[in-house]
Amino acid sequence: MSFKELVKVLGLGAVALVLGVEWLDWLTRRLRVSRGPLKEVLFFPSPHVCVEHLFTRHRRFPCACPLPHGIETSFSRLLEHLLSARTSLDLCVFSFSHMELSRGIILLHKQGVIIRVVTDRDYMTITGSQIGTLRKAGICVRHEMSAAVHMHHKFALVDGKKLITGSLNWTLTAVQSNKENVMITEEPALVQPYQQEFQRLWEANDPTNHKPQTKLKPSFVISD
Amino acid sequence: MSFKELVKVLGLGAVALVLGVEWLDWLTRRLRVSRGPLKEVLFFPSPHVCVEHLFTRHRRFPCACPLPHGIETSFSRLLEHLLSARTSLDLCVFSFSHMELSRGIILLHKQGVIIRVVTDRDYMTITGSQIGTLRKAGICVRHEMSAAVHMHHKFALVDGKKLITGSLNWTLTAVQSNKENVMITEEPALVQPYQQEFQRLWEANDPTNHKPQTKLKPSFVISD
Repeated sequence: MSFKELVKVLGLGAVALVLGVEWLDWLTRRLRVSRGPLKEVLFFPSPHVCVEHLFTRHRRFPCACPLPHGIETSFSRLLEHLLSARTSLDLCVFSFSHMELSRGIILLHKQGVIIRVVTDRDYMTITGSQIGTLRKAGICVRHEMSAAVHMHHKFALVDGKKLITGSLNWTLTAVQSNKENVMITEEPALVQPYQQEFQRLWEANDPTNHKPQTKLKPSFVISD
Repeated sequence: MSFKELVKVLGLGAVALVLGVEWLDWLTRRLRVSRGPLKEVLFFPSPHVCVEHLFTRHRRFPCACPLPHGIETSFSRLLEHLLSARTSLDLCVFSFSHMELSRGIILLHKQGVIIRVVTDRDYMTITGSQIGTLRKAGICVRHEMSAAVHMHHKFALVDGKKLITGSLNWTLTAVQSNKENVMITEEPALVQPYQQEFQRLWEANDPTNHKPQTKLKPSFVISD
């Protein structure tokens, strides 16, 4: 085969490869659509593995930490769904002390994702809570104003179309020890009520509509 | 009109009415199927209303209790879904002290519904827990065997096809005070993983596979 023919063959091969990949991608998307909106269920506890690759996608050197690498777990899937946010993240969570989840939210905030957090009045001040860290990073956080009730939700809305909800508080104990469940869905009939609930709580707990407290509640440790 | 003609007209009218009702029922079912599997979201807190009508459907005299009657709430919907069980109920719940929900489960048990409960080792012994009541009624209850973890799920499976899950513990505080969510769905892709999780926990916490404890843990009060 002459050089010219070789170049032609390689060129045609490259074009065929690109078209083939495009076609496979189109087929995959069609199959996903025909199965309906995204539905995924994650169960915990989740083994402790390295998730550094989710934070730094173009890493020059492999991670040298002692944790297992390249393993997908319930936690890595949860973090991946969280980090898929491109425009907005509404988080409604009772207890939040997980440092990697906090890191993920701050990363999204730095990328320009609009983030709003509603949390529980008592649990936002427990030792280890990441709520203060989020506030220091400039993220807007509101808390349940009433002292008589708990804001016990554990859900997040990604880009207004993906719901992450379940029994899981965003804590290390919940992720690594407890029997927990998280459901992820893009079914509009399920997403929309949660979006409305978030909006209702966000507006109801607007601090400008409430009198300032004269007596601050002390921080205290509550086991998870 | 003669008596004979009147009878004919009434007879034809009755037949037409029955056929009309059957057709409307068929149409409703077709519309429900075309909207896909059941999907419902309930938010709490739920106002305290009378739900006696859900327990005693053929009541001779109206309920005389002082609570509001004839009002549908998130709690009444939750109870209604629970009481819809005809063959089986698998309940996986962290904390259970709600007396009306307990009453509902015992009613189902008496009706022959096969009931299995998995609960948390610590929380099953708190003051007010209904777990002992369920056991005394003859319902099979297993608990998380490990002292190091919490069984933190809050889900139920009705007849192996309807999933009830959310942030809500089955307690009075959760139902009447907290901000909580419960999702009900018959989407198989969501129901099946929870059914598998329940089965896994049921088998893993079979007491015949574990050594008896020599030291019993004392009961203690934990606020909800």
